[in-house]
Amino acid sequence: MPTITLLTDFGIDDEYVGLMKGVILSINPSAAIVDITHQIDPQDLIQAAFTIKSSYCYFPKNTVHLIVVDPGVGGKRDIIAVQMMGHIFIAPDNGVLTLIYDEGNIDAIVRIENSTYFLKSVSQTFHGRDIIAPVGAHIANGVELNRVGAELGLRDIVRLPDLRSSISQKGELIGKIVSIDRFGNLITNIESKQVNDYCQRDQSCKPQIWIGQNIVVGITTTYESAAQNQPLALIGSRGFLEVAVNKGCAKQHFNVKKGDRVKVII
Amino acid sequence: MPTITLLTDFGIDDEYVGLMKGVILSINPSAAIVDITHQIDPQDLIQAAFTIKSSYCYFPKNTVHLIVVDPGVGGKRDIIAVQMMGHIFIAPDNGVLTLIYDEGNIDAIVRIENSTYFLKSVSQTFHGRDIIAPVGAHIANGVELNRVGAELGLRDIVRLPDLRSSISQKGELIGKIVSIDRFGNLITNIESKQVNDYCQRDQSCKPQIWIGQNIVVGITTTYESAAQNQPLALIGSRGFLEVAVNKGCAKQHFNVKKGDRVKVII
Amino acid sequence: MPTITLLTDFGIDDEYVGLMKGVILSINPSAAIVDITHQIDPQDLIQAAFTIKSSYCYFPKNTVHLIVVDPGVGGKRDIIAVQMMGHIFIAPDNGVLTLIYDEGNIDAIVRIENSTYFLKSVSQTFHGRDIIAPVGAHIANGVELNRVGAELGLRDIVRLPDLRSSISQKGELIGKIVSIDRFGNLITNIESKQVNDYCQRDQSCKPQIWIGQNIVVGITTTYESAAQNQPLALIGSRGFLEVAVNKGCAKQHFNVKKGDRVKVII
Repeated sequence: MPTITLLTDFGIDDEYVGLMKGVILSINPSAAIVDITHQIDPQDLIQAAFTIKSSYCYFPKNTVHLIVVDPGVGGKRDIIAVQMMGHIFIAPDNGVLTLIYDEGNIDAIVRIENSTYFLKSVSQTFHGRDIIAPVGAHIANGVELNRVGAELGLRDIVRLPDLRSSISQKGELIGKIVSIDRFGNLITNIESKQVNDYCQRDQSCKPQIWIGQNIVVGITTTYESAAQNQPLALIGSRGFLEVAVNKGCAKQHFNVKKGDRVKVII
Repeated sequence: MPTITLLTDFGIDDEYVGLMKGVILSINPSAAIVDITHQIDPQDLIQAAFTIKSSYCYFPKNTVHLIVVDPGVGGKRDIIAVQMMGHIFIAPDNGVLTLIYDEGNIDAIVRIENSTYFLKSVSQTFHGRDIIAPVGAHIANGVELNRVGAELGLRDIVRLPDLRSSISQKGELIGKIVSIDRFGNLITNIESKQVNDYCQRDQSCKPQIWIGQNIVVGITTTYESAAQNQPLALIGSRGFLEVAVNKGCAKQHFNVKKGDRVKVII
Repeated sequence: MPTITLLTDFGIDDEYVGLMKGVILSINPSAAIVDITHQIDPQDLIQAAFTIKSSYCYFPKNTVHLIVVDPGVGGKRDIIAVQMMGHIFIAPDNGVLTLIYDEGNIDAIVRIENSTYFLKSVSQTFHGRDIIAPVGAHIANGVELNRVGAELGLRDIVRLPDLRSSISQKGELIGKIVSIDRFGNLITNIESKQVNDYCQRDQSCKPQIWIGQNIVVGITTTYESAAQNQPLALIGSRGFLEVAVNKGCAKQHFNVKKGDRVKVII
């Protein structure tokens, strides 16, 4: 059974996600369809980029991942399919796959243009249903990428700028909050590898993590490492630096929002 | 693999939807179960009626659609099964299928009454779990409609009044907002065909769309047709007139709610 | 096709639930995965305990139920697998299965410790993905419980106190609200059997149900038994005493919250 994942900003109040699944099952009745999430903030390409990067590798090889965060639907942007390390990603060419391009060897990128694989009637407002779902279902059925459109190079496609954390002139590691999860944990764009490099792989390194004017000292391993209602920093399940409060809500504790800066100083 | 869809006002906070799926899989282990949505506003039959009308045709033939918006559960209302153009719909007989009756040829309607196909113990508060889910699973397994209950005629069943837009004495096309989606787009009950007829199929027709005291002029094709944060009207993915704001939220822009009137004037 | 259910406090905003499904399908591609709910209030073991008790029996025999409400993740608590009447439950040993232990004959309990069945890399913050999902998928594939860890006795495991309603010195039946559903119905921990015993199985018994300073008299059978906007009490679909308002919201009507006391007096 082929697996197809969905990652969108559609929310779940409307029928939009269900229709994509109906289209998929009409073409590929044995597909196992998994929702990664539909609660990406409307049109937030950065949040979506980090979510797909942190998710794809937990799915079986040959999974087809459909990412529909598409502020430009019906406009000039392309829709592309990308093959990377045995996974297929189908998304608007708006940069949402930027972090995937850096993950490993890209085997192929194509611009989706063969309408044989689209719904017969294509709206200008819902390409997720009319193009991405049916093309994904056909590819999961075994249709080769070179059948759906012309090959593109990595230079031809759109990338999002400034996704990664950086080192400031003062030598500080500068990142930001890219997601806040249901528990109020603050998930940053600072990868564990970057923290390790920054600490020069010194296990006893106790960096200061700045969130606004607040400081958390040291990086621990579990949510219970701090006293109840006290903040802590750890490498979260995504492999990125995360700030949490034991049995509490870091979002409220620090009064922060997505996009706010996080700074690490040794 | 038979497909079974669920459309309810149960929300997702509780176990209710999961239990319907457990009952279905107990009877029909290979069913592919798809959530259309469970976020119909509690007991809003109008919103549900438009949602199932806009959704069913994207699913494979022989799909069984279970619609549970059921303010009268445990009371005198019947539960019915309707066969139409290769799709089966199971719902309380409270009018939620009104727009389905108008879609095409109705092949059969039955009143569900054969308790052989119910759970052994039927509560008076959750017929979705105890009657609709098991009957749906059996029908998806191939049980014929005439086995589940006595045939009814179209005259025997309940219809909702005033679902459709109408032409006023002044010659204006009068409709209302029936859904507001996650993006704040205002989805009306005015079908594209009605707009076309109203414009007498004149492509250059630039109708005024009134929302309260605000006017949007002309019908465009994509959300990007207006400048950023500017309103626009288009035929949405449901095939109905929709009012949106490019990269913004029409609900806030116009300060409107579901049920508010929308008027089209040439 | 084996069925695997998920019951968590993860919410649906993040990728966490999707990743568990990806891990399951990587091991057990034909699993039918059903969400019971992911909206358990963060770390509310009581709400989760009642939800799994009220849900499991609607699923096929041999279903594997994964319950991840896990405030102690990464700490010293064990993860256990419990076999009861043909169902398997996998959860942290934090009492979330307390009501399952009382349901029927426990066939086996094991402490999950055989890392052969874990993901290769186990984080300290997401055992749902790294341990519970893969072990559940292997067990649904037929791996015997005695392969995953050492057997435990009922005395070895954690129970939650005070889950059940009780009889006060004055002879009153004392319970509390353990869930409030989407419709605002107040679901208590008072089982129908307890009400029946309390009424000494007298069908004409008209108990007073106290919610704060408000009283509902008598127990009815359907939500429409009271006049519109009037409160009523019934045995809900869970088999527990429930207080509702016909076509209204009991939560608002009584201005109550989860945990508030409910008292029954003959």
